Amino acid sequence: MNITPTSGPHASFHALLSGFSRFGATAAGGIHRPEGTPANGEARQFMADWLKQRGYRLVVDRIGNMFGIVDFAGPDAPMIMTGSHIDSQPNGGCLDGTYGVVAGCVAAETIAADIRAGRLAPKANLCIAAWTNEEGARWQPSTLGSGTYVGDFKLDYALARRDGDGVSVRDALSEIGWLGEDEAPALPSAYVELHVECGPVLERRNLRFGIFKRWWGCRKIELRVDGAPSHTGPTLMSERRDALLAAAQIITAVRSFVDLVPKDVMHSSVGRIEVSPNSPNVVPSRVRLFIELRSADEKVIDDAYARLEAKIAETAAATQTQMEIERDEYRRPGRFSDSLAALAEDAARDMAIDVLALDTIPAHDAVRLAPFTPSIVIAVPSIGGLCHTPLERTDPADLALGLDVLTNMLRTLVTKGGV
Amino acid sequence: MNITPTSGPHASFHALLSGFSRFGATAAGGIHRPEGTPANGEARQFMADWLKQRGYRLVVDRIGNMFGIVDFAGPDAPMIMTGSHIDSQPNGGCLDGTYGVVAGCVAAETIAADIRAGRLAPKANLCIAAWTNEEGARWQPSTLGSGTYVGDFKLDYALARRDGDGVSVRDALSEIGWLGEDEAPALPSAYVELHVECGPVLERRNLRFGIFKRWWGCRKIELRVDGAPSHTGPTLMSERRDALLAAAQIITAVRSFVDLVPKDVMHSSVGRIEVSPNSPNVVPSRVRLFIELRSADEKVIDDAYARLEAKIAETAAATQTQMEIERDEYRRPGRFSDSLAALAEDAARDMAIDVLALDTIPAHDAVRLAPFTPSIVIAVPSIGGLCHTPLERTDPADLALGLDVLTNMLRTLVTKGGV
Repeated sequence: MNITPTSGPHASFHALLSGFSRFGATAAGGIHRPEGTPANGEARQFMADWLKQRGYRLVVDRIGNMFGIVDFAGPDAPMIMTGSHIDSQPNGGCLDGTYGVVAGCVAAETIAADIRAGRLAPKANLCIAAWTNEEGARWQPSTLGSGTYVGDFKLDYALARRDGDGVSVRDALSEIGWLGEDEAPALPSAYVELHVECGPVLERRNLRFGIFKRWWGCRKIELRVDGAPSHTGPTLMSERRDALLAAAQIITAVRSFVDLVPKDVMHSSVGRIEVSPNSPNVVPSRVRLFIELRSADEKVIDDAYARLEAKIAETAAATQTQMEIERDEYRRPGRFSDSLAALAEDAARDMAIDVLALDTIPAHDAVRLAPFTPSIVIAVPSIGGLCHTPLERTDPADLALGLDVLTNMLRTLVTKGGV
Repeated sequence: MNITPTSGPHASFHALLSGFSRFGATAAGGIHRPEGTPANGEARQFMADWLKQRGYRLVVDRIGNMFGIVDFAGPDAPMIMTGSHIDSQPNGGCLDGTYGVVAGCVAAETIAADIRAGRLAPKANLCIAAWTNEEGARWQPSTLGSGTYVGDFKLDYALARRDGDGVSVRDALSEIGWLGEDEAPALPSAYVELHVECGPVLERRNLRFGIFKRWWGCRKIELRVDGAPSHTGPTLMSERRDALLAAAQIITAVRSFVDLVPKDVMHSSVGRIEVSPNSPNVVPSRVRLFIELRSADEKVIDDAYARLEAKIAETAAATQTQMEIERDEYRRPGRFSDSLAALAEDAARDMAIDVLALDTIPAHDAVRLAPFTPSIVIAVPSIGGLCHTPLERTDPADLALGLDVLTNMLRTLVTKGGV
């Protein structure tokens, strides 16, 4: 494996990745490029220029998704899609998302060269997608662009999302000049997304390539607890309505649900708590908890949710508080395309690479597409499992290996015209 | 009982209380007069003018405590002291503290008139104190002025306390012109403080007068919990170091300690929590808890503290977190003067008033003086138990009754020259 190639696809890949890494570069060695920021606009322009220089057609839809369409087989041929996203978490890393877009671009070049050289007879066109606001860092929900593309979100809803400063997606995309007017391309025949693992499993198993065969479901719950403020000194314990005490009981219960199912089958968390008045000598009167219940098994999430509801009722009664679920979002767990997983295994076998089947617990754009068209996410290791940090790294040889598998898969899909 | 008297001590009392209520008056019907604010300076000037108009000597010491000294028995005679404080909580009520100062002033007038009329042969002088920063709202600790007076705090320490904006006590008192230069008077032979109850016990028992015979101790603990940040999605449960989960277990434990002792013997609370990064999808990495353990029984507090230490060690190990007590302040519980309590009971019996023995759980200036000289706090009901709110109220007849008992007690003490 040539780690610092000077020509060929690996050299193109590293040059293009370095190019993207300039936009929003931070002193810590990562990037700060949330959706709709000027740096994000610069990265979009860089991608557009790269596509146009090669004669590929650029389509920008009305939620700002970018599609680079490479016409191999004429307008009536099916379409194979690859890609990911070029927005980042605040102070995030250079690979998350951008890796898949860059690899898609370089794979398209390799396949185009194969076709020009007569080594490949294409039955499909290729499309490289860069989805808007995958991270959900500036606007919630995440995977907003791909979700809008498949119809999970109405366009008006998506454009009207507001960030913490009240700025809408519509205004921010207009401001940087990337609120498109094009019709998005029709659903592809297959969608393949290459990503860094964002977890430690491959590294720990000393493997270099994984296939996400399932995605975990996630139920996100915002719980409001109402008690009553009073002086922490004289107020009789029996008369306190302590919203923080009640919340603490919910937090420990949410953790305990995990122990009722086999190890690593469910994850749960309370990552955020809001307390008022939050004064050392006032009994807390209002708390908000941000709860997550995650599993690949829908029944596990349903059972945990039922236990949470029971615990809420029991705790509210015991602590003389009132509790109300204010927000309740659910992403169903699911299974990516077995056919595409088999194709990825075949490609890896051709290259003598061992493969590990993985679950993805965070969302990816492929999770949005999967219910509508055969989709898959393939992955290379993250050093130390780190993600969403400037320290996010992958061995360059592994990055190149991921590119090669993706190219192999896309070559097969373009040749066959689909799965 | 004449509720709206037009002459006599009750009329003077209501006029003087109304006078004080102008300074820092809020639209909600309370006062906003934290220590060192311009409104606090105006209230101080109002008190000084009142004292001077009557020929009483004003002493302002170097922490801004005000003493109005009424010379009944010559410079070598012992001193009886009464008073409280005229600073308020932010958006507090008109009675907390100011009631005791106003009643002390009016009682002095009554006793002076008695002496002038030959109805009383004084063996002691009388002093009305208004202590600096009792509330501890702007600067911690509370009871700063009385604590400095008895030597619990060094003057330099007290003057150097800084508020949330970094302003020191010294600078704020200088700014409003009330950083005094006088030597404080020597410790009195007795200190009697009249206060509103700031609790619901008298009202619920349908009684009008209480004697605080004990004050509760309070241990205030600031606990830091250190975990590690990671993604709430993929991070394995076994590898999380969740500082909020650990904190929740401490919060429930702190509450549970109360159930190990008889009812109403101990109070505990966690009123404030600080969490970072406090993002819905990041495992919390640092939490600070503000814990209070209160009881009239020192052993109860000690036992609870030992249980807390054990729980901290156990929870840190179980949650893979580290915990450290960053602040640990202790106010020992204690007992006010039995002699002064007996004097208050005698005074009440003379007036055919039923008496209830109470504990004070919040601090008062008398708690600072009690270890050094016979001291007591006597109290009248708070409607609904409300305190530290603009809604703080007491029936005017009860306010007048408290004044009468205080006057009775001070008359006896001035006559006898002490307890």
